[in-house]
Amino acid sequence: MLGARWQALRRCAALPRAVRLRVRQALGAREPAAAVKVQGWVRSVRSQKEVLFLHINDGSSLENLQVVADPSLENRDLTFGSAVEVEGKLVKSPHSMQNMELKAETIRVVGPCDTWSFPLKMKKRHPLEYIRQFPHLRCRSSTLSSLLRIRSEATAAIHSFFQDNGYVHIHTPIITSNDCEGAGELFQIETSNEAKESAEKTHFFNVPAFLTVSGQLHLEVMAGAFTHVFTFGPTFRAENSQSRRHLAEFYMVEAELSFIESLQDVMQVMEDLFKTATSTVLSKCPHDVELFHKYIAPTQKTKDRLEQMLKNKFVTISYNEAVEILKQASQTFTFKPEWGCDLQTEHEKYLVKHCGEVPVFVINFPYDLKPFYMRDNEDGPQHTVAAVDLLVPGIGELCGGSLREERLRFLESRLQRLGLTDAYQWYLDLRKFGSVPHGGFGMGFERYLQYILGVDNIKDVIPFPRFSHSCLL
Amino acid sequence: MLGARWQALRRCAALPRAVRLRVRQALGAREPAAAVKVQGWVRSVRSQKEVLFLHINDGSSLENLQVVADPSLENRDLTFGSAVEVEGKLVKSPHSMQNMELKAETIRVVGPCDTWSFPLKMKKRHPLEYIRQFPHLRCRSSTLSSLLRIRSEATAAIHSFFQDNGYVHIHTPIITSNDCEGAGELFQIETSNEAKESAEKTHFFNVPAFLTVSGQLHLEVMAGAFTHVFTFGPTFRAENSQSRRHLAEFYMVEAELSFIESLQDVMQVMEDLFKTATSTVLSKCPHDVELFHKYIAPTQKTKDRLEQMLKNKFVTISYNEAVEILKQASQTFTFKPEWGCDLQTEHEKYLVKHCGEVPVFVINFPYDLKPFYMRDNEDGPQHTVAAVDLLVPGIGELCGGSLREERLRFLESRLQRLGLTDAYQWYLDLRKFGSVPHGGFGMGFERYLQYILGVDNIKDVIPFPRFSHSCLL
Repeated sequence: MLGARWQALRRCAALPRAVRLRVRQALGAREPAAAVKVQGWVRSVRSQKEVLFLHINDGSSLENLQVVADPSLENRDLTFGSAVEVEGKLVKSPHSMQNMELKAETIRVVGPCDTWSFPLKMKKRHPLEYIRQFPHLRCRSSTLSSLLRIRSEATAAIHSFFQDNGYVHIHTPIITSNDCEGAGELFQIETSNEAKESAEKTHFFNVPAFLTVSGQLHLEVMAGAFTHVFTFGPTFRAENSQSRRHLAEFYMVEAELSFIESLQDVMQVMEDLFKTATSTVLSKCPHDVELFHKYIAPTQKTKDRLEQMLKNKFVTISYNEAVEILKQASQTFTFKPEWGCDLQTEHEKYLVKHCGEVPVFVINFPYDLKPFYMRDNEDGPQHTVAAVDLLVPGIGELCGGSLREERLRFLESRLQRLGLTDAYQWYLDLRKFGSVPHGGFGMGFERYLQYILGVDNIKDVIPFPRFSHSCLL
Repeated sequence: MLGARWQALRRCAALPRAVRLRVRQALGAREPAAAVKVQGWVRSVRSQKEVLFLHINDGSSLENLQVVADPSLENRDLTFGSAVEVEGKLVKSPHSMQNMELKAETIRVVGPCDTWSFPLKMKKRHPLEYIRQFPHLRCRSSTLSSLLRIRSEATAAIHSFFQDNGYVHIHTPIITSNDCEGAGELFQIETSNEAKESAEKTHFFNVPAFLTVSGQLHLEVMAGAFTHVFTFGPTFRAENSQSRRHLAEFYMVEAELSFIESLQDVMQVMEDLFKTATSTVLSKCPHDVELFHKYIAPTQKTKDRLEQMLKNKFVTISYNEAVEILKQASQTFTFKPEWGCDLQTEHEKYLVKHCGEVPVFVINFPYDLKPFYMRDNEDGPQHTVAAVDLLVPGIGELCGGSLREERLRFLESRLQRLGLTDAYQWYLDLRKFGSVPHGGFGMGFERYLQYILGVDNIKDVIPFPRFSHSCLL
């Protein structure tokens, strides 16, 4: 196919100009081709008496393109890290490890590299902690470029999943006066002039403004018009971001569905999204994922778990059952398991292990543990709401969701007890005008990447780790 | 196709349960079908002696599904705005205006609507200014639901354009310590506790932190590893957001390309993106776009302009030529056109008119007008940089881009003169390690929507207009 495209391009060209190919295209070409140009950065140089070997990479794939050249083409700027433009013939490679290689006719060093001060070194797999010190250069390492390709494909897969299923994509507000009722510590926003003065001033927006912790309430508005909506954007928590588990800024996928019949409808979408996105990433970036499973993930388990996960239905247990399992555990916990208390990470990990190291839905949480908008199960004496958490091996909670309280009188009396009736008048309104049973969920995107790749530190799955001493915060 | 799918679904079902269809699917069905369920909100009720007509809509299309029922199925909750579930037979409609209609066997009111206090009224096209007062309900009007479907499709089209062309999607940071050198007034971030105290405190991030005004510099880092990268996310300016032209929070598409040969390479991508996204939106949402061109856009011109735009190559003029054109204009401007001064909106509109109401690239702007990172054209005596603005009819500037200065010595001396060497050490680093000619651009997404739809007030193309007195800021 590429051969044909190249032929067509060549025919169009008035002058015999080289056809520019990305490394990925060159490696995947079916037929040899003359007059090809490839541009990228040198990943290795090996100069022998009769032949000069280069490996070049342009970020389009993990694999490098091998360039074979006459030693006369060598020059002192042709070093690891330098940017080059190579023209020549694309030929079948005699080596079984690669399909094609480029026989160079010309090599031009576009941008030399000061190898001594360049923190990455030739043919060295640098630990993630080391390259995290260089937020502006670490994307040139194999590991981080694989990560960012995977992140890009996973993002696209999530968008496609929702589009293919008829969801409307909504950009929910980033700056909001809504604090989503204690979902976490907030960041507040001022204009830079205001920040310098004292607090007794008018605000830019007339009211205090915060960075969003969730787009859920805004999505619920939209679910009342489109029935199926989603958002995928940044959310913020002013929690200690020095930990390996938390980020101040992270991405969240959120969806809301109207006209559903039960919590199972929400769980089905969570499971489908999870499996579809993962299968797509595995098929689109097999080599990139393999690098993580081979060299980064703590054990072989990560890969096996993923395969198991894709084959089997997720397990579902109730919160009541979860507490019983924990109480009967031989393990002693730092936090004693007790009905009415939140599940701690140690509990979540135990439950996942107990269920066979597979994703586990825990449903129907205590009424008093959960925010006002979750749907009352009207049960007792252990009063619960229709909430769900998805726990996964190695991570703990990955997604949370619930049915939303669609019944005006339930919502009214709960908001009244909380003294929130005035603030949520608009939310009550939604229940006065064609209210329908609905529910939704959110999934932390970085935790999802950590899970599928087996990455320990959450800072290693974002494009720019936050370094307080760097301009590239 | 739908008929076949439905048959398959019916065969699978153990019990003869109704197949749930969205309004869009029901309207597009090729064959009649029994036992169909459609859920949505009532857009009109017309009760005749022998027959009851309903129009229902679920946000999947602008068009409503007509439901035909026996008058005995009427009940007092079946009003405009109520949520219903209708089961019955999907049949060919006798009317030429619609393909299919639903013969109801049962109608269940899922959620009644308090019609008197509901601000939207049956069969009324409410002006955009009116519905803007109800940010939590306006998405249920035809106009806003069309807008949000278009926004969703345009978002998807932009993502696809870049993916299809081998770009890696990067989530550039929202919270940053970089202020992108005067791209606009910034929002500063504190934790909510900090904001309440006075300013002499340690910051959450140890340094002052702002909301991003552009992801460009972060994208440039990534262009040094992947050659083709893009981002599409929220950006922020603390400008007066009460105007019709500005938002405090808006979406921006940004791309960076390495190994380019000239500014024309950047312009080509801008033009391709623009045309591809627009064609996709026109083909995916023809009715939604038509609504805007018919009822919202000021004149028939918007539609004609779009068609012209898609057919013709964009015009290119230099800044020097632009100034000459403005100086020779018979029109008098509030701001006198002068070499070395920024183009004002009045100038941009004149230039677009002068060139025949088509998109116009203006290239090569004065060196002293533009930020430090733009590439020096080394010309004179009128010293310019390789920058480009794309001006479009009715809006003015829609996109801006440039070649970036890839030469270390040029960048070093410019940063030194500006006293910014320390702050941009990391940016200089990028020029020491395999630097390549590169460039990029940004496009304001809301202005793009305004342009293709002919919407006057920028607040009408966002999901939630900012109302300072509302919880839904």
